[in-house]
Amino acid sequence: MAGSTYGTSFTVTTWGESHGPAIGVVIDGCPAGLPLVKDDIQKFLNRRKPGQSKFTTARKESDQVEILSGVFEGHTTGTPISLMVRNIDQRSRDYSQIKNCYRPGHADFTFDAKYGLRDYRGGGRTSGRETIGRVSAGAVASKILGHLGIRITAYTKSIGTVTVPESEYDYNCINNNPLYMPNNEYAKAASLYLEDCMINQDSSGGIIECVIDGMPAGIGEPVFKKLDALLSQAVMSIGAVKGVEIGDGFLVSHTKGSKNNDAFYSENGQILKRTNHSGGTLGGLSDGNRIILRAAIKPTPSISQEQETVDIQGNTTHITITGRHDPVIVPRAVVVVESMAAITVADLLMDNMSAKIEYLEKIYLKNL
Amino acid sequence: MAGSTYGTSFTVTTWGESHGPAIGVVIDGCPAGLPLVKDDIQKFLNRRKPGQSKFTTARKESDQVEILSGVFEGHTTGTPISLMVRNIDQRSRDYSQIKNCYRPGHADFTFDAKYGLRDYRGGGRTSGRETIGRVSAGAVASKILGHLGIRITAYTKSIGTVTVPESEYDYNCINNNPLYMPNNEYAKAASLYLEDCMINQDSSGGIIECVIDGMPAGIGEPVFKKLDALLSQAVMSIGAVKGVEIGDGFLVSHTKGSKNNDAFYSENGQILKRTNHSGGTLGGLSDGNRIILRAAIKPTPSISQEQETVDIQGNTTHITITGRHDPVIVPRAVVVVESMAAITVADLLMDNMSAKIEYLEKIYLKNL
Amino acid sequence: MAGSTYGTSFTVTTWGESHGPAIGVVIDGCPAGLPLVKDDIQKFLNRRKPGQSKFTTARKESDQVEILSGVFEGHTTGTPISLMVRNIDQRSRDYSQIKNCYRPGHADFTFDAKYGLRDYRGGGRTSGRETIGRVSAGAVASKILGHLGIRITAYTKSIGTVTVPESEYDYNCINNNPLYMPNNEYAKAASLYLEDCMINQDSSGGIIECVIDGMPAGIGEPVFKKLDALLSQAVMSIGAVKGVEIGDGFLVSHTKGSKNNDAFYSENGQILKRTNHSGGTLGGLSDGNRIILRAAIKPTPSISQEQETVDIQGNTTHITITGRHDPVIVPRAVVVVESMAAITVADLLMDNMSAKIEYLEKIYLKNL
Amino acid sequence: MAGSTYGTSFTVTTWGESHGPAIGVVIDGCPAGLPLVKDDIQKFLNRRKPGQSKFTTARKESDQVEILSGVFEGHTTGTPISLMVRNIDQRSRDYSQIKNCYRPGHADFTFDAKYGLRDYRGGGRTSGRETIGRVSAGAVASKILGHLGIRITAYTKSIGTVTVPESEYDYNCINNNPLYMPNNEYAKAASLYLEDCMINQDSSGGIIECVIDGMPAGIGEPVFKKLDALLSQAVMSIGAVKGVEIGDGFLVSHTKGSKNNDAFYSENGQILKRTNHSGGTLGGLSDGNRIILRAAIKPTPSISQEQETVDIQGNTTHITITGRHDPVIVPRAVVVVESMAAITVADLLMDNMSAKIEYLEKIYLKNL
Repeated sequence: MAGSTYGTSFTVTTWGESHGPAIGVVIDGCPAGLPLVKDDIQKFLNRRKPGQSKFTTARKESDQVEILSGVFEGHTTGTPISLMVRNIDQRSRDYSQIKNCYRPGHADFTFDAKYGLRDYRGGGRTSGRETIGRVSAGAVASKILGHLGIRITAYTKSIGTVTVPESEYDYNCINNNPLYMPNNEYAKAASLYLEDCMINQDSSGGIIECVIDGMPAGIGEPVFKKLDALLSQAVMSIGAVKGVEIGDGFLVSHTKGSKNNDAFYSENGQILKRTNHSGGTLGGLSDGNRIILRAAIKPTPSISQEQETVDIQGNTTHITITGRHDPVIVPRAVVVVESMAAITVADLLMDNMSAKIEYLEKIYLKNL
Repeated sequence: MAGSTYGTSFTVTTWGESHGPAIGVVIDGCPAGLPLVKDDIQKFLNRRKPGQSKFTTARKESDQVEILSGVFEGHTTGTPISLMVRNIDQRSRDYSQIKNCYRPGHADFTFDAKYGLRDYRGGGRTSGRETIGRVSAGAVASKILGHLGIRITAYTKSIGTVTVPESEYDYNCINNNPLYMPNNEYAKAASLYLEDCMINQDSSGGIIECVIDGMPAGIGEPVFKKLDALLSQAVMSIGAVKGVEIGDGFLVSHTKGSKNNDAFYSENGQILKRTNHSGGTLGGLSDGNRIILRAAIKPTPSISQEQETVDIQGNTTHITITGRHDPVIVPRAVVVVESMAAITVADLLMDNMSAKIEYLEKIYLKNL
Repeated sequence: MAGSTYGTSFTVTTWGESHGPAIGVVIDGCPAGLPLVKDDIQKFLNRRKPGQSKFTTARKESDQVEILSGVFEGHTTGTPISLMVRNIDQRSRDYSQIKNCYRPGHADFTFDAKYGLRDYRGGGRTSGRETIGRVSAGAVASKILGHLGIRITAYTKSIGTVTVPESEYDYNCINNNPLYMPNNEYAKAASLYLEDCMINQDSSGGIIECVIDGMPAGIGEPVFKKLDALLSQAVMSIGAVKGVEIGDGFLVSHTKGSKNNDAFYSENGQILKRTNHSGGTLGGLSDGNRIILRAAIKPTPSISQEQETVDIQGNTTHITITGRHDPVIVPRAVVVVESMAAITVADLLMDNMSAKIEYLEKIYLKNL
Repeated sequence: MAGSTYGTSFTVTTWGESHGPAIGVVIDGCPAGLPLVKDDIQKFLNRRKPGQSKFTTARKESDQVEILSGVFEGHTTGTPISLMVRNIDQRSRDYSQIKNCYRPGHADFTFDAKYGLRDYRGGGRTSGRETIGRVSAGAVASKILGHLGIRITAYTKSIGTVTVPESEYDYNCINNNPLYMPNNEYAKAASLYLEDCMINQDSSGGIIECVIDGMPAGIGEPVFKKLDALLSQAVMSIGAVKGVEIGDGFLVSHTKGSKNNDAFYSENGQILKRTNHSGGTLGGLSDGNRIILRAAIKPTPSISQEQETVDIQGNTTHITITGRHDPVIVPRAVVVVESMAAITVADLLMDNMSAKIEYLEKIYLKNL
């Protein structure tokens, strides 16, 4: 497949360019009978909308989702759910610069190399607007997970050099600051850092953390479809992500086995772990503990400083990117990471439905 | 799919348990006409064999590969290539401990949670021997890449706290020390570090780096099958990997856009980059520069210190893992990372064959 | 996958219900650089529109396609092509009968059995309108095939007992009669047959034949993705199809090998066949001759005679289906069969691009 | 994928050439906990073995299966099941004829066209021995189905012009005659027909019928993965099959809707059908009635009469195929059709496990 479909049992196919008529997603394999209304999806989309703080572009994107199929009388029907958002605020402007030059840090050059042409308006398919499809599907996946008692929470761990240490997390703060940080004081420090970036016509990266609670043990498929492997693909497939970690992540390279192993113990008949260095997976399957995932987000490549580059004829030139651009992608990417995690987990929960003959008996043998 | 198949055009399906009769892989979609002999594969397998230094288990695993199909008169035929290695040195021993207890850091518990039973002998499907299938397929993928001028090189960047800085890399050293480090002095320091681990009945993690040279630009599929996304899945699907980075990786979280963007320039009609912070991808497609990937490997979970755990009835107990185990997985995992990268790149090169109508014309219109 | 996606390299994902807001398709993997305009697709859709003769429902379905993505300045860009048709003529009517009863010959009962609920308005997802997505994608696939010199032609071979013998085919007639038969006289006889059906409140089945010319030899993948196997899946997946044949089809069961084998001979350096009983495939791969395929279409299940059935509570009852319904599905299904064949062939042509290492050399080694 | 893998949840990957070292299959996604021993598979393989009557080749193929992975202490473990049969009776002989010429009715020419080379020994990958993998996997699928109360029965309906009418079926006879016909008298007549073929150095085709009892309603996925569509792909992918029918099949082309529709009625709270013209599917989903499928098998292409053909240089020549060949493929293909049906149904039963949110609740919400 050419890469626009993700998942095996719960499959998500996204489409759309930044300045085409619309952007959307088709979800195939959503179980029938799930309550679902437009607002379930709109709430997710609102979290990635720009214009919510001075650190996001002032472009107004109303991004109203339309449910085109697969939902009837407030419930999913088991048939494909088609979701679409019209691109309504794309006023015509001058794209000659981006048409004729390759912006550093963007995919202009690689798309031309691959396809021989590209829709250059606003980044086309490589625009951040591509994530509208992901987030819409993530909202549906989250609805399934919530129904089964599984909760996903993503937030900003770092902006530039400002990192919230785990000991100071307060999850109640996440939605109380425009940067989605789990600590309002750190969020203020990060705001100052970003203002400084903006003054210097520069941009900042950061780290998003995502935790999944309520996971049953045994989710994930051995070898290539390990839970952590698919989470990595899912999260690394988001435009600006350059690194992914599970649990202690890169830290494990210099810890010892005696410290990194999580001891098991038993309490009230439940098998628990004393620590969770592994981040909730063992052998690529969930171990019943919190799944912990981190993604490194690169600084916005669109900066207004003059940059050296080449034009499409291959001549060295310089480019100054105009227009208002987010000095940091991180806050708006939080819901994208959460969505990709939700889609992955929903898919693997369904894949796991035939892991034991006992499950098939439960569904198909009436007298059981 | 239940997770044992990887790839779309060049697909790899692995099978086998540590102490079953054999372990192997089926490769479907290898192009016909590629010269391939048993030794091409054996050379790769020899790189993951134990018993090559004091840091790898003394178990003798001769691991002789057998080509069962898909090769005729020294060339691939386009039909599935079935490769098998017999498990010949698996003497019968007492597995009662591992049968009845869940080893910390291993997948014993999660396999039981998923399937209700497991082949406990030597770790069964979760044994490191599972990588024999991956490495065999990686050898074939590397043969294809070599044929097209693409070279993959993996090596040990760190063992515990000993890290070779990029400025001191000497790729000629990689095969001259048992740790596959690109610097013999650092390899000696790492050996001392490992000896200390062994004395303390402990184990060490590390970092493997993998670089890919000679890549054409435009390889990878947008959105979910980005080159970096699939490399992440591929590498994170290796048992002990807990983190993956592309290019500058987690470093990007605290660099600025003006520094992180790689300026383009032109030389002799070629479009080049002044730097390669992005690690050879832009928008998930190769940009013609060196692909750079790093994987964090956790310390071997099998250590001989006594550890707290539970038995399969859920009672808290203690376990002391006997037998000789590698104090570090990293050196033997180098060829596994290289193999997974090779499989991924071979698959994406084939996926890319129909990216342009011009390519179809080249193959199907005779007069062109 | 839940069944709404078809194809490996050229993938088609359809969505939409009869009386939802819209119906559509997403095509992923269409090569970039193909000239494509809305009219290319509209022409195909017009061939399945109702209201073109007395044998098709009088419902007005304007079915105007909208290209939502993947096309820029008249050419495909390589990114997903999203096509949508609004359901505009679906006036509100009384669906209580179809809501509460299971229509014989329809999927009302089986959808309830599978999903526990269904969108009963106008058949919902099981409506013939589902084929709008297939035909839209078929138009794009046909554009690719035409570009490579491959032509697909489908037509009505039989309506009820009226069958056009091969000796009397005149392909120029196909678009000159409302039944798409390759002979106007037989079309007249078939019209009389259908009028008789209508008088008796009954419906008729028929046979559609589809031929593919200009195929290169070697297309199809051995074993499970044989060209004929995928054509069978593709065509049998159309709602009313109950049988599929390739070449001589069921006739082979009582012919002898000496007659059924097609002798090869050579002419002007080309390898040709004296006969084509095999229908253009050998071992599931195209042999360079005309591909011949036939599909048996069942009579329209919606008839206005009273029929015995059950209600959704499981009580035996009777139903009289009101409203105007096509007495025969065949003519409108011709373009659907042609579309499914086109999608299948386009997909397999792309799959075949990496069959030989020589092809990879042609694309990736610059000096060749 | 290059066509050697079939299925989504229960996936089957076959490999192997007629005269290579071995032939086999890897099954991924078999549920854990299913009792499985070697004899379950060997029984199926024995049904396709040659040498059982004068109508099958006298070649001795002992075809002993080896279970290489995925089974532990008599139960499946959920990990890939690798099954292998060594090619032990392949004495070296002279293949120069088949090497240098294209046999009519065989895939020699199309394989060369696709791949540029082929393993010509005994047909290589296109040999009937390729079905060993299918039948081995079919045995496992049948074990799952049997466990859930689903029974598949295949048999020979026709040999040449000798057809057993449904009214004279006696399923108890199927294993009492070498042709697997459901009536011993017709089997005798068919034997005479075949003897006549042999005297005339000719071969015969036939029809295999396959019925599936005990199917729950609602199995199959709408649109492209309809139960009947996948059964068609599965059965048409068997080498010699040229046509597939479901229920009344091609007969529907000339019956009326009033006769073809199956009336529903209710009995003891169960929804039943008065007739089963549809062959157990409605809208591509099982309707709870017997699934009925027929496959047309072409006459064996290997006949000892002299035939016109071309050599690999493209010169017209003549070929006389020596050696003993089955005058009819049908009896040995019966178990292959049954196996492909079993694999398809097992796969779709698993795909269906997440069709309703209620099923997910049943597995994942402990208190339900």
